Amino acid sequence: MRNTLGNAVSVTLFGESHGKAIGAVIDGLGAGIEVNEDFISHQLSLRRPSDALSTPRREQDPYIIESGVFQGRTTGTPICILIPNEDTRSADYGAMAVTARPGHADYTGYVKYRGFGDYRGGGHFSGRITAGLVAAGAIAIDALRKKGIFIGSHIAQCGGISDRAFSDYAEEINILNEKQFAVLDDAMGEEMKKAILSARSEGDSVGGVIETAVIGMPAGIGEPWFDTVEGLLSHGLFSIPAIKGVEFGSGFDISGMKGSQANDCFRTENGKVVTKTNHNGGINGGITNSMPIVFRCAVKPTPTIGKEQETVNLAEMENTTIKGAGRHDPCIVHRARVVVDSVTALVLCDLLAQKFGTDWLAE
Amino acid sequence: MRNTLGNAVSVTLFGESHGKAIGAVIDGLGAGIEVNEDFISHQLSLRRPSDALSTPRREQDPYIIESGVFQGRTTGTPICILIPNEDTRSADYGAMAVTARPGHADYTGYVKYRGFGDYRGGGHFSGRITAGLVAAGAIAIDALRKKGIFIGSHIAQCGGISDRAFSDYAEEINILNEKQFAVLDDAMGEEMKKAILSARSEGDSVGGVIETAVIGMPAGIGEPWFDTVEGLLSHGLFSIPAIKGVEFGSGFDISGMKGSQANDCFRTENGKVVTKTNHNGGINGGITNSMPIVFRCAVKPTPTIGKEQETVNLAEMENTTIKGAGRHDPCIVHRARVVVDSVTALVLCDLLAQKFGTDWLAE
Amino acid sequence: MRNTLGNAVSVTLFGESHGKAIGAVIDGLGAGIEVNEDFISHQLSLRRPSDALSTPRREQDPYIIESGVFQGRTTGTPICILIPNEDTRSADYGAMAVTARPGHADYTGYVKYRGFGDYRGGGHFSGRITAGLVAAGAIAIDALRKKGIFIGSHIAQCGGISDRAFSDYAEEINILNEKQFAVLDDAMGEEMKKAILSARSEGDSVGGVIETAVIGMPAGIGEPWFDTVEGLLSHGLFSIPAIKGVEFGSGFDISGMKGSQANDCFRTENGKVVTKTNHNGGINGGITNSMPIVFRCAVKPTPTIGKEQETVNLAEMENTTIKGAGRHDPCIVHRARVVVDSVTALVLCDLLAQKFGTDWLAE
Amino acid sequence: MRNTLGNAVSVTLFGESHGKAIGAVIDGLGAGIEVNEDFISHQLSLRRPSDALSTPRREQDPYIIESGVFQGRTTGTPICILIPNEDTRSADYGAMAVTARPGHADYTGYVKYRGFGDYRGGGHFSGRITAGLVAAGAIAIDALRKKGIFIGSHIAQCGGISDRAFSDYAEEINILNEKQFAVLDDAMGEEMKKAILSARSEGDSVGGVIETAVIGMPAGIGEPWFDTVEGLLSHGLFSIPAIKGVEFGSGFDISGMKGSQANDCFRTENGKVVTKTNHNGGINGGITNSMPIVFRCAVKPTPTIGKEQETVNLAEMENTTIKGAGRHDPCIVHRARVVVDSVTALVLCDLLAQKFGTDWLAE
Repeated sequence: MRNTLGNAVSVTLFGESHGKAIGAVIDGLGAGIEVNEDFISHQLSLRRPSDALSTPRREQDPYIIESGVFQGRTTGTPICILIPNEDTRSADYGAMAVTARPGHADYTGYVKYRGFGDYRGGGHFSGRITAGLVAAGAIAIDALRKKGIFIGSHIAQCGGISDRAFSDYAEEINILNEKQFAVLDDAMGEEMKKAILSARSEGDSVGGVIETAVIGMPAGIGEPWFDTVEGLLSHGLFSIPAIKGVEFGSGFDISGMKGSQANDCFRTENGKVVTKTNHNGGINGGITNSMPIVFRCAVKPTPTIGKEQETVNLAEMENTTIKGAGRHDPCIVHRARVVVDSVTALVLCDLLAQKFGTDWLAE
Repeated sequence: MRNTLGNAVSVTLFGESHGKAIGAVIDGLGAGIEVNEDFISHQLSLRRPSDALSTPRREQDPYIIESGVFQGRTTGTPICILIPNEDTRSADYGAMAVTARPGHADYTGYVKYRGFGDYRGGGHFSGRITAGLVAAGAIAIDALRKKGIFIGSHIAQCGGISDRAFSDYAEEINILNEKQFAVLDDAMGEEMKKAILSARSEGDSVGGVIETAVIGMPAGIGEPWFDTVEGLLSHGLFSIPAIKGVEFGSGFDISGMKGSQANDCFRTENGKVVTKTNHNGGINGGITNSMPIVFRCAVKPTPTIGKEQETVNLAEMENTTIKGAGRHDPCIVHRARVVVDSVTALVLCDLLAQKFGTDWLAE
Repeated sequence: MRNTLGNAVSVTLFGESHGKAIGAVIDGLGAGIEVNEDFISHQLSLRRPSDALSTPRREQDPYIIESGVFQGRTTGTPICILIPNEDTRSADYGAMAVTARPGHADYTGYVKYRGFGDYRGGGHFSGRITAGLVAAGAIAIDALRKKGIFIGSHIAQCGGISDRAFSDYAEEINILNEKQFAVLDDAMGEEMKKAILSARSEGDSVGGVIETAVIGMPAGIGEPWFDTVEGLLSHGLFSIPAIKGVEFGSGFDISGMKGSQANDCFRTENGKVVTKTNHNGGINGGITNSMPIVFRCAVKPTPTIGKEQETVNLAEMENTTIKGAGRHDPCIVHRARVVVDSVTALVLCDLLAQKFGTDWLAE
Repeated sequence: MRNTLGNAVSVTLFGESHGKAIGAVIDGLGAGIEVNEDFISHQLSLRRPSDALSTPRREQDPYIIESGVFQGRTTGTPICILIPNEDTRSADYGAMAVTARPGHADYTGYVKYRGFGDYRGGGHFSGRITAGLVAAGAIAIDALRKKGIFIGSHIAQCGGISDRAFSDYAEEINILNEKQFAVLDDAMGEEMKKAILSARSEGDSVGGVIETAVIGMPAGIGEPWFDTVEGLLSHGLFSIPAIKGVEFGSGFDISGMKGSQANDCFRTENGKVVTKTNHNGGINGGITNSMPIVFRCAVKPTPTIGKEQETVNLAEMENTTIKGAGRHDPCIVHRARVVVDSVTALVLCDLLAQKFGTDWLAE
């Protein structure tokens, strides 16, 4: 449903980059879930640009829970979280009203919204809208943790530099969730930062790959047609601006394997069924098998760059050029990580509520 | 919604591999769309195993349109297409009731459906269920063609052998749609077939990558959050058994590019806005830009293989081994291709009906 | 979603009166629910015309469960129930292709489906489509009974004759569910039948009111905005052809009461909260309070009558007259009763599955 | 979907009576619809208590459009309207935390939300939540008017006093929409007010019936199963607190008619099909026939009254009594009228957008 994701637990996003506020409405969370406002702030801080790697725009993201929380817990009714827009310098963006920025949604939004969209700062397409998603996701992430389900992501690749692989999900997820720049190998993280700064100095930008792991999910969650775990997660993940690919388990690599290699053999371990390998990323037939859910998202380089690029003036339908003038990030991979976690948490809460009912998360 | 995909145009799948019948209900197609039964048969034949490359199970897929079509055209009411199951040899599958086949949904289905699922031949998880999707998709594909929107896929990689890239979408889509083994370079296709037969002779299987292109889509279709074109397509595509990755445009490769490379510059061409490159696969901000929509799906090797594999007897929770006894395919990539096209067509019909209304496709 | 009702448990209807088959797909019922085929037949027999009160069309409604049931229990996957059309005499309806029958959907269907609808026998608008609903509902009714939730309806009024009120829900629901002509007072039932036969002899028809009671529903089910119990039930009920009004508890009569009269005072009884009266029909704020859910549906007289009526020839846009020629019922109230029960059961299963999860009904 | 109504055009409500704010998110309205802020204020003023007939609580309802409107027009993205809560005196309601008010949702909310709901002033069940609906509805009403579709309601009955019937829809709808106390016959309106004040003086309350007419709807809108116009409207209408019955056309009265009486004969008039009578309220087979859509809603007397009533202390599960102490209305019928219009407009926008596409309303 358009700007809403989810069935039993749903999230609706609203807002424009330079409008009054952005925000989210989460519906379907059971009553009695503790809402940790410090954790929401923490998650927002992970998304926020915080140093030379990001846009100099300084958002404090002071959010307001307008409804759905009472005495520190969810009431079971819709939670509206509002994040007022403060530091907006629309003047920077004036020229972009009709000059489509390559790689951005200016042109497609112009066609879709027939010229009536709020073009300032990307409007409803702005990455800023993900702040609402992060605030909403924080409640979901926290609720899942209390049920023993943990989500963590690292920057598997950025600017051509690769991080090492996960070696101990439980421990590393904990560590990653405290890091502003989420890598498993900090030395590689420093190399990535250099690549980002180097791109910045050229007026250019870089992309990367985010790898996510979820542990603790019970087996038997998901549907075969069409609400597979992969289908629902990717549905949500692809709306994170800049994500152009999603793969589960061994993903595209599995396409080059033999069946005898790719199949994850089952074994019993402490009376539980486990698999010896995890090429299927914790999902068989669209349904969780209780092994870690593992997936990767391809993030394209930030489209706003300082270099001159060819484009079209949409009002006059004339070829022209454009050069990024507004504040922008040379890389958003490190900031997008927490958005990936948030979408993941919201989708999993939805699936769990469908299976176990409204109150399961709160119990 | 579980076994239903789509909003304005939706498809619901039902059936088990060894039950009475499988089928699909399509709802939301406008009244007056011509239904070409030969084309449905043609599409089903592309999915059907047809030679040494596939399972020897011979399904004729004689389908019955139970409702929603009158005098050769859609009535605007739900179309139920039923495909009776005929050649089912359940005895082959008896042993698999509780011995989970690695890489299959036997275990996850067992947990999800609490032991009550129809385990015969994979039951509701069987690839056979996609026949309903193909029949439904055929109506959608045909309707889109009449509006100038064409979908075609080729086997970009199979068993480690790569096909060449698209060079002329319009012409090649036409050719591909007639081929049983859809490659652009037939010599490479022969190599792929050898790789499949070689895997078969080892009691093993191979996977591959399917690349799809859609031309003729108008700009402005899709939603920013969450019903992006990428999100809706991947939602549907991931329910095709064996698909473990979906990427759009340059996909995972874009994550290694610089912004100046990845951005598709806009130009005017015959009074229309086009892009010079198409790294974004025809989609910006989740919305079509009228360039070809291009995506790739990673298909894992068929999990049923002739080799002995470790697994668990679910009833007794004991380690055991299993060796594929039933009929199976050493590769499903060439058969999955038409399923990918079908899902694509159904999702695009849904998006178009949302934008232009119920009757647009029929006009 | 158009021809689908429900979220966690949904039902989709398909079929035309004179097409190949009609049917229903039920999705979301947990795995392991016993499916009593005799009960399905019993329920279909209550809907079927059976004597002089109804159309002479004799449908045996031999239904086929195409999927979703295995070894006598639900598998948890979509259940497709098909009811082939057999005794169809399309010739009777030829003239109605373009001559709109007053009170019917011929004209509105003609506009909506742009002349492409299957007009024979009402097509997709035919009351016959409710047979699929009754078959689907039978599974839901039976599942609810096993959880202690019972649904029963009586003909509160028909042809101007009123039945007495419920006096003991539990006992009377049992009795009603065995009756072909469901009244609490059989003497009044005989009067109603006379009124029906009298209308028939005049080439006319009568309507009535169906009153339904549900006992055993736990408190706390339903949503305040917008998925109230009243809202969801009425959403489903109004699609039963001929229903033009739905009221809960004291319904329209409550609008003439004082607050002090209309309020149902709470009391404790055996450690449970009950109300002294039930003017609110078991629902406060859209949510069940564990008292009997009571509602009434107004059923209009069957629109097909033997008398000549003014109408329009849609093809030529000319005034003309029409006189019912096909088989028809002088009254459908007694047949609609079991459809009301079926819709009720499906909606309640949906609400319960949302609250308690997929498997609750099956446990 | 729980707190969301609609498909192509949807509205989500959030907020608690004594929380920070209440509000609504409307999604799916096409881009370019003029947003008349004065009209929103006007509509809110019709809902607002304004004189001795209502609660002395004085809400100014200063609303904020947080998103989705730019330069006076819809942008096509979600519109979030926030209405801060200001004049809240929670102390008044302290005692009601566990003492369930008869006729209210205190008990059902307590069970549903497991004691975690915000009980102050009815919380999420408060009639105040309808202010968000009215603000959202104002945009929809205004958009429909520009397409020639007009909605108007009058108080058909209140406190036992009946208004006269509509005689000229077009003219009377205009007049009603300006009136604070919407009756066609002002003399009867004065009698109603007396009845309200008389009830108030007794510490009691009265209910009534609201009758609504919609003119200008094109024929062919709605679905046969299950998204009938009646089904969708009633789904929305029943979530307006206090509504216990909805009937279309002649409603419950039609159940006593003969078919020859109830059938609305078709005629041509200026090349258009019309009906001679309108017992079916503009809807045949769930689909509009272009005649006025007419329906009535039964509104129960306000449950909060000054009289002592029996009830239960939920924490201690003991019988007790309660007497309304907070501010309350002796009647809400006159205030509910604009909520009925709002729900109607939102549902019709949804149906029209489904039929004609996203942009139709904006064109």
